[in-house]
Formats: sequence, C-alpha cells, structure tokens
Amino acid sequence: MRKATRIFHDPPGIVTSAAVGGRMENEGPYGEYFDKINDDPYFTADTFEKGESQLQKQAVRMALEKGGLKEEDIDVLIGGDLLDQCVGTTYGVRDYGLPFLGIYSACSTMSEGLLLAAMLTAGGFADTAMAVTSSHFCTAERQYRMPLNYGGQRPPTAQWTATAGGALAVSAQGGAPYVRAVTIGRIVDMGVTDANNMGAAMAPAAYSTLREFFEDTGLSPEAFDHIVTGDLGKVGSRLLCELADDEGLDLRKNHLDCGLLIYDSDRQDVHAGGSGCGCAASMLCGYFVPGLREGAFHDILFAATGALLSPTVSLQGESIPAVSHLVWLSSEKE
Amino acid sequence: MRKATRIFHDPPGIVTSAAVGGRMENEGPYGEYFDKINDDPYFTADTFEKGESQLQKQAVRMALEKGGLKEEDIDVLIGGDLLDQCVGTTYGVRDYGLPFLGIYSACSTMSEGLLLAAMLTAGGFADTAMAVTSSHFCTAERQYRMPLNYGGQRPPTAQWTATAGGALAVSAQGGAPYVRAVTIGRIVDMGVTDANNMGAAMAPAAYSTLREFFEDTGLSPEAFDHIVTGDLGKVGSRLLCELADDEGLDLRKNHLDCGLLIYDSDRQDVHAGGSGCGCAASMLCGYFVPGLREGAFHDILFAATGALLSPTVSLQGESIPAVSHLVWLSSEKE
Repeated sequence: MRKATRIFHDPPGIVTSAAVGGRMENEGPYGEYFDKINDDPYFTADTFEKGESQLQKQAVRMALEKGGLKEEDIDVLIGGDLLDQCVGTTYGVRDYGLPFLGIYSACSTMSEGLLLAAMLTAGGFADTAMAVTSSHFCTAERQYRMPLNYGGQRPPTAQWTATAGGALAVSAQGGAPYVRAVTIGRIVDMGVTDANNMGAAMAPAAYSTLREFFEDTGLSPEAFDHIVTGDLGKVGSRLLCELADDEGLDLRKNHLDCGLLIYDSDRQDVHAGGSGCGCAASMLCGYFVPGLREGAFHDILFAATGALLSPTVSLQGESIPAVSHLVWLSSEKE
Repeated sequence: MRKATRIFHDPPGIVTSAAVGGRMENEGPYGEYFDKINDDPYFTADTFEKGESQLQKQAVRMALEKGGLKEEDIDVLIGGDLLDQCVGTTYGVRDYGLPFLGIYSACSTMSEGLLLAAMLTAGGFADTAMAVTSSHFCTAERQYRMPLNYGGQRPPTAQWTATAGGALAVSAQGGAPYVRAVTIGRIVDMGVTDANNMGAAMAPAAYSTLREFFEDTGLSPEAFDHIVTGDLGKVGSRLLCELADDEGLDLRKNHLDCGLLIYDSDRQDVHAGGSGCGCAASMLCGYFVPGLREGAFHDILFAATGALLSPTVSLQGESIPAVSHLVWLSSEKE
C-alpha cells in the first residue's frame, strides 16, 4: 500500500480565508479574529437550519471578498456540515451555482475539504478550489441531543458546538501559506459508546493520523510551531498526549486544540471545550492561516477530527468511529 | 471560469466493480447482473441501518475479490450514502482501515465518488482508488418518509428506494473501461417542493450537467451508446427529454435511466421507478461497466442525480436543490 501521506512537490497556496461566528465565539479569547460576527442565532432566517445556511453563504462571500475574487474565479466548491444530508452547505451555497462536491467528515470536514482542494489544484483539475463548512449550536443540539427548550443537563465531558464556520480558497499559483503535504485519515473505532464524550472517541483517530504523518515523512513534532487538532476538548487532548507518550512521541510542547482555544472555559459555560465543524474551521481560517501568512508561525499541522456516528445508530448501541485528516501548512514552499 | 468538464489526457481505467442487491432487485429485469443477492433485508444484522452497512461491506469485499485485489492495494476509499451522517458507509467500511474520504451527494454519490477516484488517480495521488455507496428501502423509508409499519400510501410520482449498492476501483494503469472525462455538477433548484416527486426536482440538474458537458466538449448525444441517468424515474426522465428538446438537443434516442431499468414497473409495485444511491451504483457496477469491458457498449455518459434535501428543511417549507455529476466512460483510451 502507498503511504497515506501525499507530499506536494509544487505546493499550492491558500489565497484567502474567512471566519464567521456567533455571539459566544465573539466573547471568546479569539473573538477579534473573526471576520464577521452574528449576534442573531437565526442569521435573519426563520429557522436555525436556514440560519446555518446563511452562515455558510456569508463565509463563502467573505472569503471571496477578502481575496479579491469573484464567484467565477472558483472552479470547484467543496463543502459539508453536521446536519442530516449536509443541508447547511447545500442550501447555503446553492445560489452561487458553482461546480460543487459535497463531503461528509463530521468535525474534520475542513481538513477533508482543504486536503481535496489541495489535491485538485496540485493535480491540475482546478486553478482555484474553495472549501467551506459550518456548525451551529442550536441545530446540533436538537439533532444530536435534545431540543433546546428541554433544558437537558450536560455532563462534564460534553463540548459546546460552535456557531461558526469558515471558508478558504486554494490555488495552484497561490502564495503562503502553502499546503506542503496531506494525510488522508483512516477510520478508527476504539469502542467508545458515550455520545457525550466525543473527545475520547476521536483522540485515537487524531493520534493514528499524526503517527502516520511522522512515520511517512520522517519529521518530528519539534519541526512544527503547533500541532493543531480540531475539537478534542479537555478529555480528548489529554488522551491524545497520553497515547503519544506511550509510543515515545512528545506532543505536549506544541499541541493546541481549537476546542480549547475558541472559548474561555473558566468564563464561558462550555464544559470540556468547543466542538463542531465550525470550531476548527473558524480557528483555521480566522487565526492560523492569517498567522502563517503574516509570519507569526512557520509550520503547522492541522488535524481536525470527526466523530462519524449518527443519533440513530448510537441508540442502536453502536460505538463511535472517528477519522482525522491532516494538512501540513507552511510559510515556506520547500 | 474554467469549464466544469475535465478531460483526461491519460485516462484512468476501472479495474473492478461489483453490485449487491436485495430480493426486489433480483426479481427485476437485471437481477442476473448482481454479483450478490441478499434475501434478508437485515443482511444478518439486527437493524436495517446496520444491514445497510453490511451491504457496503459486501460491495467492497466483492469488488476486491473480483479484481484480484487485496485491501492494501486500495490507496483511498471514497464513499457515502443517504443515511443521516452517512453511517451506512462509515460503519460499513470502518473494519477495512483504509484511508477514507466521506462524500455526500445523495443519489449522485457514485458519480461523485467515481469522478473523485478518477481525478485522484490521474493526478498521481493514488495508484488505485475505490468508490462505494448504497441505499436501502427500509432505512430510507423511515428516515425520509414514514416507518414501514405505518403503511403510508405512496403517490404515483413516488419512487422505490433500491436495496442495493456498488463498489468500483479506478487505477491510473487500469484498462477499459476508461474514464475519459468528468463534469462536476452545479446545484440547481427550480423550486420543486414535493418530496414525493424527486424526478421533477432532479431532472433540471441532470440537464444542466449534460448540456454543459456537450458544450465543453463539442460532442453530441449521438456520440454515445447510452446517456445514463441515475434515478429520474418516469416523471424525471420525461422532463429531462423535454428540457433537452426545448434547446434542440435530442436525448430520446439513447437516454436510459437506471430507475426505469432496475425494476419492471408493470410487474413490480414501484410506481415511478427505482431510486437511491444504490440504484445507479448497482446498475453501473453490475451492468454498464462489465458491458463496456466486454464490448457491448463503446461510450456511455453516466450522470447520476442527487436531491439534496433533508426531511427537516422540507418540513420548513424549503424547495429541493439537486446536483448531477457526470462521467464519460469509454472502451477506448482516446
């Protein structure tokens, strides 16, 4: 078998990115990095689901504007989200009329979208490819857990789904940050069945992909400013570092988790941290990509993780498979 | 903007394919073309959803066996299905431990999977890539419409979700049939709101993509043995030909629809025809790909269509966006 990591000889670059958030995200430590904040959880629509679609529409629009791009400059749009049948995306982007590829990878959607955008541009199948995703606290709560009005108690391991999203465009001729390599994740299922403890379910997938990247490339964690996971939260982040410790890999020095960054858990009532496709996507598009462009960081591994369960099969007693796709972003082309 | 069609200068080939079905599909006119038939709608599992996962697991296994391939020969597995969070796929393929990319494109999933597999192999990112999808009458009915036990009446425009699936592998070094070109579909929404009339919602998307392919390539419908849509059924197939007529494109001579082929509507109680990701996928993997390999056909356009709605947003009054991805399959490399 070929390795799961693909290294780009002529790396494509991220030419624009935009992050959109809600009020909670604005009140978090990285609020200033969002390009647009919406205080209205309905995003002027009449349902939360339609609101989430508005969020994605905004993210695409903002990314185009920030990059000085027109819709026609995008050869393919790649997107997905947590909602049944990915309707946050399909209804959000339908008006753009762009060639569209739907993806599903739960909270690792931005990793998968970016990875595909990089391969399609590097392979010559698109000059510019855009990836977009989102999540919304209110749509996720009622779909995965309980209607908001029920006022259910959340256990300490639960995470708070970010009302956020991000979009970015990759171009074969783009400048820094460059996509130097990608690792396509494998599904890992360690038998965790607690749908209120996604961190524990996803940490083994993150570790599997990171280990494979280091093996495939011969690089070590010290080569990177930060190793950024998506939304492992408190529980999953601890587990990831312990899994790595067991095999002599020290991730503690430079591991960051978007789920631990996006909110201030002392001040905001988010229990084990943030989660959702939009958590990692907005932190990537709003904070890490601009930081790489401006020289605040030189090399980052972005490995968002997705829990591939559904409420239906969880109720049927199934465990939670997870996947983590990885992207190596660098301010240098080689 | 670049064209939505990508023509391969060195076309990859489909090295193996397998179709799996249930009892209804076996009793249809193409029953003999299925590689495996399951009389048990549970596929030996204890729920329909887990059964659908078994179906996908079988499809991957059969495709590997028929092609003399081992799991390690697959560099990336691409898959999705109609179930919330695509659990038919993720639970079906998790045991293979292959690098996995989840996609969502409703009933055009096999088109999207094949299109991506072709681009990733032609671009040098995989030697061999596999695409898989499925649908299941019992999981689709209870998710999209009513529990089976309710015994709801189906209107004449309704279609019957096939309990079927297919898997195929594409290789850069593969022989016929070759993937000569692909067209990435755009989302088209003509305002249809009747979730019991998917054919009407999807026909404009199929036409949009076909028209774009003919414009991009300068080819005409006569260049192909068959122009195969996924599951437009009676209503959508008629609409597709009428839309084409209006612009002087005659599709009537060689248009076929998998939804009209898979069942005998005089003999089987399927109303407007078959549907579901597995309908087009099984007809492609069981009938058209082998036919191309054996010389029964020379050139086929495969344009499956997907309705990108969810029950939630339908109940919120939304119309039904649709997409159709196209693949040109040929027995000749150029």
